[in-house]
Amino acid sequence: MILEVAILHIIKGEEQNFESDFKIAAQYISSIDGYINHSLKKCMEVESKYILLVNWLNLESHTIGFRQSEQYIEWKKLLHHYYSPFPIVEHYTMVN
Amino acid sequence: MILEVAILHIIKGEEQNFESDFKIAAQYISSIDGYINHSLKKCMEVESKYILLVNWLNLESHTIGFRQSEQYIEWKKLLHHYYSPFPIVEHYTMVN
Repeated sequence: MILEVAILHIIKGEEQNFESDFKIAAQYISSIDGYINHSLKKCMEVESKYILLVNWLNLESHTIGFRQSEQYIEWKKLLHHYYSPFPIVEHYTMVN
Repeated sequence: MILEVAILHIIKGEEQNFESDFKIAAQYISSIDGYINHSLKKCMEVESKYILLVNWLNLESHTIGFRQSEQYIEWKKLLHHYYSPFPIVEHYTMVN
């Protein structure tokens, strides 16, 4: 299992619209093979900052299964215009 | 419930020692009132980078309950010398 981590900076004033559209977008990511679960959380210290955590079965579930899917096209349409700057997405593995 | 997020950059070559000492240090954080669970994960894209996620009952469990405890003194002794630069720790709340 791997964890996708994205720190999201949302355009100021668009936070409520982003949160609302994220709820719609969640259906697209959660329909992908290898998706396990996700959580979106809002930073208490920095305005308009969020963290998206997604657990995937493996790296390819995200980088190929999701990013090359029809669902990702819908996800992008709903969400990508809220980000400034565009986020860096990283992946993390368990420490044994 | 709130999520503590710390992105950790470990001094190169010290990753194994850090992971080993983190296992010892985990007992200190997990003994604090309001601690729920934690996970330490290693970045797949960036060398020597980790993410520490800790769920707390509320903000004060971390900022007062842990940081003003005897256990935090032991935690610091074990771990703080591995970080370069010293991490910024942030807290995140659920998005409803």
